[in-house]
Amino acid sequence: MAAEIIQAINASANPVVAIDIPSGLYGDKHTDDLSTVVRATTTLTFQVPRPVFFYPEYEQQIGEWQLLDIGLDVKAVLESPPMPFVPDNNDITSLLPYRPLFGHKGIFGHALLLAGSYGKAGAAILAGRACLKSGAGLVTVRTPAKCVTPLQSALPEAMCIPDEEETFLSTIIKPATYVAIGAGPGLGIDKQTGNVIKRMLQDFDCPMVLDADALNILAENPTWLHFLPAGTILTPHIGEFSRLAGKIADPFERTKKQIEFSKKFNCYILLKGRFSALSCPDGQLFFNPTGNNGMAKGGSGDVLTGLITGLLAQGLSPMKAALCGAYIHGLAGDHCAKTSSPITMTANELIDFFEIAFNEVKKISTS
Amino acid sequence: MAAEIIQAINASANPVVAIDIPSGLYGDKHTDDLSTVVRATTTLTFQVPRPVFFYPEYEQQIGEWQLLDIGLDVKAVLESPPMPFVPDNNDITSLLPYRPLFGHKGIFGHALLLAGSYGKAGAAILAGRACLKSGAGLVTVRTPAKCVTPLQSALPEAMCIPDEEETFLSTIIKPATYVAIGAGPGLGIDKQTGNVIKRMLQDFDCPMVLDADALNILAENPTWLHFLPAGTILTPHIGEFSRLAGKIADPFERTKKQIEFSKKFNCYILLKGRFSALSCPDGQLFFNPTGNNGMAKGGSGDVLTGLITGLLAQGLSPMKAALCGAYIHGLAGDHCAKTSSPITMTANELIDFFEIAFNEVKKISTS
Amino acid sequence: MAAEIIQAINASANPVVAIDIPSGLYGDKHTDDLSTVVRATTTLTFQVPRPVFFYPEYEQQIGEWQLLDIGLDVKAVLESPPMPFVPDNNDITSLLPYRPLFGHKGIFGHALLLAGSYGKAGAAILAGRACLKSGAGLVTVRTPAKCVTPLQSALPEAMCIPDEEETFLSTIIKPATYVAIGAGPGLGIDKQTGNVIKRMLQDFDCPMVLDADALNILAENPTWLHFLPAGTILTPHIGEFSRLAGKIADPFERTKKQIEFSKKFNCYILLKGRFSALSCPDGQLFFNPTGNNGMAKGGSGDVLTGLITGLLAQGLSPMKAALCGAYIHGLAGDHCAKTSSPITMTANELIDFFEIAFNEVKKISTS
Amino acid sequence: MAAEIIQAINASANPVVAIDIPSGLYGDKHTDDLSTVVRATTTLTFQVPRPVFFYPEYEQQIGEWQLLDIGLDVKAVLESPPMPFVPDNNDITSLLPYRPLFGHKGIFGHALLLAGSYGKAGAAILAGRACLKSGAGLVTVRTPAKCVTPLQSALPEAMCIPDEEETFLSTIIKPATYVAIGAGPGLGIDKQTGNVIKRMLQDFDCPMVLDADALNILAENPTWLHFLPAGTILTPHIGEFSRLAGKIADPFERTKKQIEFSKKFNCYILLKGRFSALSCPDGQLFFNPTGNNGMAKGGSGDVLTGLITGLLAQGLSPMKAALCGAYIHGLAGDHCAKTSSPITMTANELIDFFEIAFNEVKKISTS
Repeated sequence: MAAEIIQAINASANPVVAIDIPSGLYGDKHTDDLSTVVRATTTLTFQVPRPVFFYPEYEQQIGEWQLLDIGLDVKAVLESPPMPFVPDNNDITSLLPYRPLFGHKGIFGHALLLAGSYGKAGAAILAGRACLKSGAGLVTVRTPAKCVTPLQSALPEAMCIPDEEETFLSTIIKPATYVAIGAGPGLGIDKQTGNVIKRMLQDFDCPMVLDADALNILAENPTWLHFLPAGTILTPHIGEFSRLAGKIADPFERTKKQIEFSKKFNCYILLKGRFSALSCPDGQLFFNPTGNNGMAKGGSGDVLTGLITGLLAQGLSPMKAALCGAYIHGLAGDHCAKTSSPITMTANELIDFFEIAFNEVKKISTS
Repeated sequence: MAAEIIQAINASANPVVAIDIPSGLYGDKHTDDLSTVVRATTTLTFQVPRPVFFYPEYEQQIGEWQLLDIGLDVKAVLESPPMPFVPDNNDITSLLPYRPLFGHKGIFGHALLLAGSYGKAGAAILAGRACLKSGAGLVTVRTPAKCVTPLQSALPEAMCIPDEEETFLSTIIKPATYVAIGAGPGLGIDKQTGNVIKRMLQDFDCPMVLDADALNILAENPTWLHFLPAGTILTPHIGEFSRLAGKIADPFERTKKQIEFSKKFNCYILLKGRFSALSCPDGQLFFNPTGNNGMAKGGSGDVLTGLITGLLAQGLSPMKAALCGAYIHGLAGDHCAKTSSPITMTANELIDFFEIAFNEVKKISTS
Repeated sequence: MAAEIIQAINASANPVVAIDIPSGLYGDKHTDDLSTVVRATTTLTFQVPRPVFFYPEYEQQIGEWQLLDIGLDVKAVLESPPMPFVPDNNDITSLLPYRPLFGHKGIFGHALLLAGSYGKAGAAILAGRACLKSGAGLVTVRTPAKCVTPLQSALPEAMCIPDEEETFLSTIIKPATYVAIGAGPGLGIDKQTGNVIKRMLQDFDCPMVLDADALNILAENPTWLHFLPAGTILTPHIGEFSRLAGKIADPFERTKKQIEFSKKFNCYILLKGRFSALSCPDGQLFFNPTGNNGMAKGGSGDVLTGLITGLLAQGLSPMKAALCGAYIHGLAGDHCAKTSSPITMTANELIDFFEIAFNEVKKISTS
Repeated sequence: MAAEIIQAINASANPVVAIDIPSGLYGDKHTDDLSTVVRATTTLTFQVPRPVFFYPEYEQQIGEWQLLDIGLDVKAVLESPPMPFVPDNNDITSLLPYRPLFGHKGIFGHALLLAGSYGKAGAAILAGRACLKSGAGLVTVRTPAKCVTPLQSALPEAMCIPDEEETFLSTIIKPATYVAIGAGPGLGIDKQTGNVIKRMLQDFDCPMVLDADALNILAENPTWLHFLPAGTILTPHIGEFSRLAGKIADPFERTKKQIEFSKKFNCYILLKGRFSALSCPDGQLFFNPTGNNGMAKGGSGDVLTGLITGLLAQGLSPMKAALCGAYIHGLAGDHCAKTSSPITMTANELIDFFEIAFNEVKKISTS
């Protein structure tokens, strides 16, 4: 009977508004048969979002959702049963790095990026530019020789250490004074590049972010996961995470596996999507609220990697860097989409909006 | 007698206003002797434009034309006798791709461009940038080695797959996951590049756009027209179309040949000009109303190719992609000319106005 | 006695205002002993400027000058005795090219630039960009191989034909369809490059502009002046003109020699300075009123060459192209200086103001 | 007792305001034991800043400081005891170069930069761009071959003289017509590059600025300090100065050593920091008030070097060039931080604000 009503609703051409949650859908676990769930155009819910709202798999059922403030005690709602934490501007404000009046470039940290291969210099440019505009003091990019001219043309503020190989990374450099590393954007998966990643995991003990091809290399060499320095941040999208964690049945199981993975390898996983999910070695889980589908384009992830690396270089803990990075990245994307258009905006344009995003969450005295 | 009056009018230095249509000019077929047609400064016509208004050959007779709304039933006017369809903002709004809330870069399609040769990397940059700003998820440019550095410097968001040859395209890549292809801008007409185009027509079965040197290669190898995948879009200017279709006596014959060509080879022809004409395999014909003479500059066509390819990658049918592409391209050009100047505007600057053009025809929620 | 008064005035620290002309200075011929001329801070003069006001040699005597309108008949004043003609916005408006509604890129002309050498690619970029933004339909740059990547990165709308030599121009290309040529910016003076210039003068018969190293090459090979196609435009600064025309005693003699040179070689000389002077084969002389000292920087001349070449490509006569080019160039510079600062403005930034300058002198319908 | 009170204050979580100076801190000499000094959030002081306010070592004690105007005679205060001079907008206005109405590019000077090495082309770009936007007439960059393409792409207005070596500077060029030299940004410390610096010191007698690796080369070869042409400007940060001057106990001793160094080697030292200190051969000392921690990023120093070199090229004395350069650099940085954000601003973006900074200190007629 209910199924019949639901099918009639779904067959209607009218807009459908669900209250609380679309009928037939579980709020905190997977619903196997989505054919008997109302497909809402909009879902109006109370005070806090349900976990199910954060997963792409239920978009057709939930539509766009909005929170209604009906005066519930948010803390109580969040605790019983436990709900994932979703930070807002105020949470992020308190986490961002402090800039001392007399701070010099050494104080704000030296970030190192391993990025780029022949034909993918752009990934290194995007990560490098995002890192430069994160507030870090110095940015060095280790990159194959063929990527150096595009990088230097686009980013005069960044230094390069050219690899001896023209088209891919073949050797590791010395840890030197780097405070944080981001590795992966545009690297490719040459075997020698794989060895560079392995050596990096073994030789460097500073905080690091692994993305893109660095994750693909790990997926090919799963035993290297045991070399991950404690507190390393991994930033896979869903496809990359599946390659690392194996086959996954549904989104709730994916979150469970993500938390287990964080605990097992003592690392942070920032699983990228419309609502990126951050899991921590202590089992905490956060969903990032900012961002939009105009960011669903090549290069957005490279920008995120550069930004998080720059925040690490300024001394933020991995959890703070991942949380702030995801939030600022999405907030900049939201301003970019609003100012231009989600259709035309690109990853490089998104970086132009870092300043608005940082200013929105933080008022900083310029001395 | 009429001829004498007309010659007197044409000899006058005063502005000349024609009502409906300049005396002596046919509205829907070619006028052989233009010396006995009034040369109007402005033509005021009723409700819908006459076919003759869309052809450059009659510019001196028609001048600038404007439509007067005198309350006629537009549909009736268009149907008897049949007139070409001219889309407006509302028509285009309904055709543009939908962007799902949770859409990721895979959803928005991977576009491939075959473009560039030594000294013509700019064509690849322009096509690539337009494609990036069409809303597509990923853009890859296959290009000769010498074009890679300019491309990567200018477009960090695009990936390149460098050809083994330094100065021209010599080999085809695998179809892989590409959803749409645009081929031609700046390619040159080396024999090996010709073979790349031939192999592309034979090996790839995704929607594609052929422009510029890809069309010149086809004109040199007319038997390859039979390899065109169904629904392929060709974007010749008048000279390129003549090379494909042979000698043409007058503009009305050109339109007739264009429609025949579309039917014969099951392809779409977007014949570029002030009012670009789109012919379809089913015989339909559209004239695009947007655009201006500030776009009459090298590179405008490359921009159009990139834009249409990007729309195809997002899943639009070839007809919709060609129609929306031509319309948005011209609308962006109109905003660019108005904001700067038709004299100084360039093809690359035109791309900056995509966002205004898309926003004008579509209101998109940014989630 | 007068000399004593003048020396007393000049020794004073007060601002000095001259009426009509500073005492002791001739208005239309050279004054040998400037020590007995009043040094004005400001000179207020009547209706039209005196010839002496246009020469840098008298800046300390004349200071800044302003015209007072006292109701004189300007035409009468200009004719008796003859005064050089100084165009204004209205004069230029009537000279600029007409853009037909249906104009395509072929209509607006194909411009060719011979420019650049190793380390001086920038001159080719500046000339190329100015040419692109002059309204021309197509721009091709013939340049040494080492200049191709910077050019293509900076100017995707321009095509390059790379020379076989890496660092300098060594061979001439075929005249093909080029409507106008600009030669000189950054070329260097290699002997082979000299031969390219010689061959250009002999093989091409389209309008051309010679600047910078093309002029230096001519100065080294004065017999080649006889190869200049009729109507060629030369754009020397004072130093370059001296190398061509020999030692010159004073500014009035310089103008005399300039006119003689134009008559003798049937060419136009645009002698660059704060008030650039254009001499014509028929003996006419014009002073350009626009411009400012913020343009006194490397690259301004390259921009002028590109702009004039682009106007020639659109079909302007050499006289019109030189006059409009100098005027628009200076007007753009004035807007640039006003918007930013004469200190910080650069030659490339000046090009950004072409659109404001063209719009100021011409209202153009964008169809 | 006082110590106990101070420790109680410092243990408090409340904001702490110090009047005049934090209790326990000397105003004009080093305080050995900072543990017994009040740590103020804000210090309010009277009429003029105390010397101790300019040193980073006391930031935790002084916090942010503000001047209160209580009607004291500033001159008297500054003279007894002597206080360092801190210039303001008016002081700088009177020092900037005059731009003659008819000034041509030769009048405004030809600046030469020795900058860049493989992977550090960016430093040459930043210095070159700052120099171009200082008002200088011509800018030439001597740089290794691998840096030429990025430089020419980014700075078309600058000329390059490529070194024969690909990756570092190996030979000196002739003094030619250069009016000023800036050496150091991104040079690296190859032995041959060292010899270039040595030869420059010996062969060139124009004003020069030494920065970055030029200073590191001097630190490695201290006997070369005796080759410094009189009036040379050195722009070390604190670490670089220590390498030149040896171990330094405290900030007041650092200032003393700085002045001694200026006297001994007849040079100007601009010691960079939040309040950069300029010492002169005659013993004068200035603190620059402009700037902020958003400039504490890689590349800011390269920008300063280019700017000072450009001011020298326009004929300013070394003292004026160093003072104006530091002031304009900091003022541009302050406007940049205010307009965007101290977090996201980069060295290249800072240069965009030169025009606002110059306009703030100088009203210039554009003729």
